[in-house]
Amino acid sequence: MAEHLSQSELDYPFKLLEYFNGFRISKAIFSACELGVFDLLLQSQKPMSAPEVAQQLGTSEDGIERLLDVLVAIEIVDVEVVQGTAFYSGTDVANLYLAKSSPKSLHDLIIYHSQTIYPLWNNLVDAVREGKNQNEKTFGLPSEEIFSAIYRSEEEMLKFMGLMNSTWVIDGHDIVTAFDLSSFKTVVDLGGCSGALARELAKEYPSSTVTVLDLPAVVQTARRHFAQHDDTICFQEGDFFEGEIPPADLYILARIIHDWKEEKNLKLLKKIHTACHPGGGVLIAEALLFENRRGPTVVQMFSLNMLVQTEGKEHPPSHYTRLLTEAGFRDVQVCRTGKSYDAILALK
Amino acid sequence: MAEHLSQSELDYPFKLLEYFNGFRISKAIFSACELGVFDLLLQSQKPMSAPEVAQQLGTSEDGIERLLDVLVAIEIVDVEVVQGTAFYSGTDVANLYLAKSSPKSLHDLIIYHSQTIYPLWNNLVDAVREGKNQNEKTFGLPSEEIFSAIYRSEEEMLKFMGLMNSTWVIDGHDIVTAFDLSSFKTVVDLGGCSGALARELAKEYPSSTVTVLDLPAVVQTARRHFAQHDDTICFQEGDFFEGEIPPADLYILARIIHDWKEEKNLKLLKKIHTACHPGGGVLIAEALLFENRRGPTVVQMFSLNMLVQTEGKEHPPSHYTRLLTEAGFRDVQVCRTGKSYDAILALK
Repeated sequence: MAEHLSQSELDYPFKLLEYFNGFRISKAIFSACELGVFDLLLQSQKPMSAPEVAQQLGTSEDGIERLLDVLVAIEIVDVEVVQGTAFYSGTDVANLYLAKSSPKSLHDLIIYHSQTIYPLWNNLVDAVREGKNQNEKTFGLPSEEIFSAIYRSEEEMLKFMGLMNSTWVIDGHDIVTAFDLSSFKTVVDLGGCSGALARELAKEYPSSTVTVLDLPAVVQTARRHFAQHDDTICFQEGDFFEGEIPPADLYILARIIHDWKEEKNLKLLKKIHTACHPGGGVLIAEALLFENRRGPTVVQMFSLNMLVQTEGKEHPPSHYTRLLTEAGFRDVQVCRTGKSYDAILALK
Repeated sequence: MAEHLSQSELDYPFKLLEYFNGFRISKAIFSACELGVFDLLLQSQKPMSAPEVAQQLGTSEDGIERLLDVLVAIEIVDVEVVQGTAFYSGTDVANLYLAKSSPKSLHDLIIYHSQTIYPLWNNLVDAVREGKNQNEKTFGLPSEEIFSAIYRSEEEMLKFMGLMNSTWVIDGHDIVTAFDLSSFKTVVDLGGCSGALARELAKEYPSSTVTVLDLPAVVQTARRHFAQHDDTICFQEGDFFEGEIPPADLYILARIIHDWKEEKNLKLLKKIHTACHPGGGVLIAEALLFENRRGPTVVQMFSLNMLVQTEGKEHPPSHYTRLLTEAGFRDVQVCRTGKSYDAILALK
């Protein structure tokens, strides 16, 4: 992504044409996920021909063959040709991250990108023009109530929760180990959604009590769809903007601040500061821009994504430090994980 | 695109996440084009701040700033920061290929990708499942009549012609110089659209007479929107499937065969063979797959694109050789240009 657009682009714009093709690469992977290609290839005892895949998945042979060949080209699927017939199998990367049944599966993240974010980005021109999200134009939902849009049906809520869950399955460990959190005995994950990050925390700090506080409908859906038989985390129904925040040693705000405008965030942080035990703190997990806003590219993309989908944006560390300090917190520490999400810890 | 998905992806799927982000990169560039960002930056005498760009283009300041920062990250826009304020200017690549006013502009290709192909690919799952194009689901147009869909309004026709025109502005010279065509004195470009490829041919072979034959509405639109004051090419209204094909030394079929099923293509090539002067030939311009279909990646993407949008597909050279031979042509020569489109010449 950060490859240099060299002077030779002036002779022929290879890199530029590759950028134009980016949406096709995304959609090819997304669609293969939606069709169940990676699960079928994982479960198959042997490499499969295109007609076999087509029959199992109920697709056209021609269509699935073209899709499989594209997946081979981008090295997500392996192929071996035996007597003129191509036999396909999943790569280790596909088996680990793309098959739905894998514990590290990004399947739900992909479904959300494919069915919600991709269509929203079709209205990026209007988002930039109007400076606001495109929930109304894309899905006919009011742009002011962003979580009414995101949670417009149980199916949509489940998809969004799947997105969040996928993220913390791959990024959660880095977030909870960015700082030593073992001294915080009671932890509340505000807006903790499916509980995936809370579970990572409970695993790393087994002597801490970890509670997820989220909207009643979210908690009910989390219990129904994301509960694990050996769950050590608790769920509590509530609204941390409108209702009370329970006392605790540590509050988690993971991908919350970037959804909202500054005023609302400051009010929330002050409320958290009031509820927080003395010596407690708050851990923010967000993708951090560089101080000068010139990267990382993926975080700049996330920030544009926030424009299209929410009322917030991504920020550099100084922004969070200022907000936290204004809310009464001190000793702000920043940890860039090198993965998609970073961590900020501040103390009361 | 063909970067290797290495074993380290198993630790953290950086490359996979980059693929997931591809649609955002595409749409960011496309949207900047639609908003006129690159033209404004080219025409400006000096680098511009985000508020200045916002004011000139009638966009939100916040939205355009996030978009400009993304374009800086992917090295399409330059930035210099003076006393804390960012000032943006177009790179040479943007000025050459993305500004609408540049003679090498890909602006029209981008508009078509953004407004037509991007939404079509939102239905890739159904295209693969059904094995047919998604004009009906995406735009409410019958899937059987592909050019009724593509030419559904004058505006859409103009957009499609712009796409074709853009392609030949950057690829046309390589196509017409892939072989020495100077011995062919009368040339007819069947489905020659805006005339861009025909113009490249007329420029390279000034002693040849070059005629574009296309549907009446296309020819009229070409005359209205793409004519040049020093045009040396002629336009002729006709339907090369249903009507007569005028006698000539050389016929061009540029991105025609890949739209249609084999039977229809074979019938067309036989008809061309009959009309062709003895010693004449046919020049096919298409993106060529490798013989084993394992690449080039971009051509495999094009083939999947043909599924979503037409009834055709991309092929390896042997397919064209077989078709041409069956139609009565001989001495088939293939030239891979190393750019997006390749050339095949066959003689009568």
